[in-house]
Amino acid sequence: MNFLGKHFLAEFYDCNRDVLNDETKISGIMTEAVRVSGSTIIRPFFHKFSPHGISGIIVIAESHLAVHTWPEYGFAALDIFSCHDLNYSETLKYISNNIGAGRYSIISIKRGVDINSPSDSPAEYPEPEKIYL
Amino acid sequence: MNFLGKHFLAEFYDCNRDVLNDETKISGIMTEAVRVSGSTIIRPFFHKFSPHGISGIIVIAESHLAVHTWPEYGFAALDIFSCHDLNYSETLKYISNNIGAGRYSIISIKRGVDINSPSDSPAEYPEPEKIYL
Repeated sequence: MNFLGKHFLAEFYDCNRDVLNDETKISGIMTEAVRVSGSTIIRPFFHKFSPHGISGIIVIAESHLAVHTWPEYGFAALDIFSCHDLNYSETLKYISNNIGAGRYSIISIKRGVDINSPSDSPAEYPEPEKIYL
Repeated sequence: MNFLGKHFLAEFYDCNRDVLNDETKISGIMTEAVRVSGSTIIRPFFHKFSPHGISGIIVIAESHLAVHTWPEYGFAALDIFSCHDLNYSETLKYISNNIGAGRYSIISIKRGVDINSPSDSPAEYPEPEKIYL
């Protein structure tokens, strides 16, 4: 493998606004998403902002999941960064379905693509790949 | 503004391997980086893996900073996601200098670029921008 991990950046639009502003529901969805992904929780943390919005980060043994919600726009930004080959597609579908996303865009970016190049060459830039569920 | 935040993905190569494996140093660098950025810490969390490697996440009021280190490759993957206009360049330079990065690639991705489109149109994909320090 010539890279160290994959980072998925998902934009979920037209979501259920009540769910996006419910810390218990978001926490439950993200925790179950980790189980679906097959990864291992090290530390979860969720924070509800006033007047609205939730940030949730779960540090996993394989890197992290993060979600930030904007209920006022029906929008959630999700990140999954893993150095192991998780069940990405199932995990992303699970989250998308449970927050009621109407539209999405998801890209995957390889992290650490240039670990094997000589130190006198410029670092390579990763090329995002579009992901369809 | 037709997007909700900027997400910087930085690959730092040929770093100081001792620093990348020192939880106290990584925690100190990341905490100071938040100060340099002008953002507000909500919750920091750092974890050292066995035999090597550190994961650090700082939830900030503006979203999050995350770092994952691979001392065995001299590599660190850094994320800064913020919904406010932080001092990105100074923050990235501060981190790069303090982990002794020899090479880097950094991209910036706008999050939530499609919040204003009608719900019957497909979601737009963000275009990464290359960042030079």
